[in-house]
Amino acid sequence: MDAALNDCLRHYELTLRGRFAAVTDVLRTLSNLQHERDFAQQAQALALERLGFELPADWLASAWVQGVDMSAMYAHCLFATIAASVDHAGIDQACWQPRMTLQSVHWHALGFHTIDISPCADGRLQGLLPFVLRTAPAPFVWVKAYAGALFDVEHDVADWTQRELERLTGAIEGGDRLDYLKVAAYHYSSSAPCDQGCAAHGSHDAAAVAAAIERLHALQVAVDNTYGHGAAPQVLLLGVDTDCDAIRIHLPDASGQLRAERYLDSAALYRATLGLSADAAQQALDAALQRYATELGGAALYHLPHGLLGLAQAWLVGNFSQLDYVQQHHGGRYAVIGHDEAFVCAGEAVPSLQLRNQFYFAHLDTVEEGAADLDVGARIFQGLNVQRGLPLPLLVHFTYSARVPGSRERAVARGLRVAQAARERFAHLAERGLLHCRVAVSERHSGQRLEWADAPAATVAGH
Amino acid sequence: MDAALNDCLRHYELTLRGRFAAVTDVLRTLSNLQHERDFAQQAQALALERLGFELPADWLASAWVQGVDMSAMYAHCLFATIAASVDHAGIDQACWQPRMTLQSVHWHALGFHTIDISPCADGRLQGLLPFVLRTAPAPFVWVKAYAGALFDVEHDVADWTQRELERLTGAIEGGDRLDYLKVAAYHYSSSAPCDQGCAAHGSHDAAAVAAAIERLHALQVAVDNTYGHGAAPQVLLLGVDTDCDAIRIHLPDASGQLRAERYLDSAALYRATLGLSADAAQQALDAALQRYATELGGAALYHLPHGLLGLAQAWLVGNFSQLDYVQQHHGGRYAVIGHDEAFVCAGEAVPSLQLRNQFYFAHLDTVEEGAADLDVGARIFQGLNVQRGLPLPLLVHFTYSARVPGSRERAVARGLRVAQAARERFAHLAERGLLHCRVAVSERHSGQRLEWADAPAATVAGH
Repeated sequence: MDAALNDCLRHYELTLRGRFAAVTDVLRTLSNLQHERDFAQQAQALALERLGFELPADWLASAWVQGVDMSAMYAHCLFATIAASVDHAGIDQACWQPRMTLQSVHWHALGFHTIDISPCADGRLQGLLPFVLRTAPAPFVWVKAYAGALFDVEHDVADWTQRELERLTGAIEGGDRLDYLKVAAYHYSSSAPCDQGCAAHGSHDAAAVAAAIERLHALQVAVDNTYGHGAAPQVLLLGVDTDCDAIRIHLPDASGQLRAERYLDSAALYRATLGLSADAAQQALDAALQRYATELGGAALYHLPHGLLGLAQAWLVGNFSQLDYVQQHHGGRYAVIGHDEAFVCAGEAVPSLQLRNQFYFAHLDTVEEGAADLDVGARIFQGLNVQRGLPLPLLVHFTYSARVPGSRERAVARGLRVAQAARERFAHLAERGLLHCRVAVSERHSGQRLEWADAPAATVAGH
Repeated sequence: MDAALNDCLRHYELTLRGRFAAVTDVLRTLSNLQHERDFAQQAQALALERLGFELPADWLASAWVQGVDMSAMYAHCLFATIAASVDHAGIDQACWQPRMTLQSVHWHALGFHTIDISPCADGRLQGLLPFVLRTAPAPFVWVKAYAGALFDVEHDVADWTQRELERLTGAIEGGDRLDYLKVAAYHYSSSAPCDQGCAAHGSHDAAAVAAAIERLHALQVAVDNTYGHGAAPQVLLLGVDTDCDAIRIHLPDASGQLRAERYLDSAALYRATLGLSADAAQQALDAALQRYATELGGAALYHLPHGLLGLAQAWLVGNFSQLDYVQQHHGGRYAVIGHDEAFVCAGEAVPSLQLRNQFYFAHLDTVEEGAADLDVGARIFQGLNVQRGLPLPLLVHFTYSARVPGSRERAVARGLRVAQAARERFAHLAERGLLHCRVAVSERHSGQRLEWADAPAATVAGH
């Protein structure tokens, strides 16, 4: 157990959660004060102190007439908090980033130049990298979430193609001996398998696993058939128990086949090594890995500490610390095992925000293609927010490349288009002021900041 | 002038036009007969004889009650005619394909492995390859049309990346000395420049040219900045006078810059060489090409018959035959200089249909992204069809690769999604039975057939 790392992560969790919790807390206080004569001054002082930013002065000034439009104010504060959290990410993450089990340098030692992870869009997987897998963010570790982990094979072939070309042209250091790894991450709930599993698969775990395996193999066949046998990326299937962040790792067997029933189970290995000395635990884990490799018929293929088995080892060791973390800070099982996201993000991921249930993320270019993913998100927020009169806050985010002329303009146009399409799809919410949508872009290579690409909401307090 | 080729093309034009004209002709006769007692038999016999396929028997059988739903019947016949024309393309094109000025083998001699052409979506450019440019279709000659020729830079970078990887992995024969060529094709009307130019640019020719140049340069910068200086594809700008199919060819100057005002004008060169002997005409053309290369400051860069100047030469020579063709068969100027398309095609091009004003083509993955292109198409058909009670026939077409598992299923799903989105966008037409939409897919590598991917319209005659 990495106690120092767990302390850093705990501090990060509390900081980020606290920032968002403060919004609700401040607004509840404002609600109580909104008809006082010096409301505007009190509100502004409170916001500055607790939230770190000012509220729209005209909304406050006219509150005495019809009160504050809490739904609009909530959305305004939430987006400001998102932007502030992205701005602060460097400081917020400074403690845990360098302590992660898996750093950029380890990937090359394991044999991979690109790690393309498609988890389910479910907000409970948003802490996947730093918490569940103890993996530091890196430019070549991509997270593209889809409902049910059902990633787009054609898009992935295009992504692989881009990296393969960079590899062949020498743009990737040491690329001649490195592979591309595609990971799909399904999830399940050990305590409420029928209710709190993957919504996209009707909480039917076997269906979620089978579908993910099918996509991973389809991607391999697609690349092999297009660029010649042996070109295909390596694949790995990951399962996450969203109750306690335990993982299952499925590696391909000697014939290259992933199997639903053959996996390494971090919870079982954690229990088996509990109380052992560090050395003994390490030996037990290595033995389990070797047994697994033999079971797969690929003992000769898998050599610790390299390749897929080495990665499994690193992720298991990292995950043991996360099981400790959940034990210590969440009583071994999260209090809220279901959804509890603060907002929906559509488009491309905001890599600076990485925390369980922070947001529901749908990777998409258009609402037309991503409708199923967004609908799941809207259904979740129907229960979380809309029922009690709070809006669904939708952040539309795309990245652009400063190297490509017009890229920023097109990212902005894409964002505005997606926002408009979302407003049309969720017109029943938008018309009642229950959908608040903002569009942001960020530079892909250097960008640690959200740049707002639309005008802020024109809603006036009281309306 | 290639008289034999022109005869072949004329026969092709008359065959294809005749097949579509027969639909209207047959339906007018049916209209006249629909209340006769043996209508069903008469109609079926006429359809089989003139159209080559049967009509839905139940529509005919119930015609005596409320008459035939001519709008639905028209759409039905049109889609059947499209499918038949794709089926017959091999035979229809057998005469002209091997006689084209530019064949597959010439491209390698010119120095190109891939020719990626983005014309405007305008139906008047649908005969671009065989008629205007006398260029044989080939697997590596791509046509992706966008309203205003405003192609998608990011998609094009992905397309270039795919081919570049194939080139580097040796999948392209002779690829080590061949280039990728991107062509944008704008259009104008010499006789009615303000009315019959490019609708996407408000018939403002200068704007159309400037926008196309900007995109071509953006693509080059994008690739250079991503994969290193010198990686960028070659570019060429083409202008088409839709009145008479004359072309303008803009080559980059010595600094790589395309210039709006510097082009080779096929109409002027045609007039200048008219009446000369073949040898003298050839010499005059070569001299003009050399003058142009000098003007661009790149005389040293351009060597006939290779590269961009060699391509310009081949296209000009081919185009002279097309100017003859329009002179001989259309009095030097098309009778209908505006729109006269038979249907709209959305998605990916049907390469088997290549005739001026055969269809309006919008290259898209989603209606959300392609809305502007589709709206232009719908506006055109408002005037062509809807005003007189005929529907807008919309063919949604995507290709799939048999090499990629699930690719066909996903192409079908994409088609059905786009069709549904189109029905929603044009609900005002769909509700009045004035939008008829069918979804088809075809295999990318072998596919010379449309496979219908949806159920045919359930409309019953008389409703």
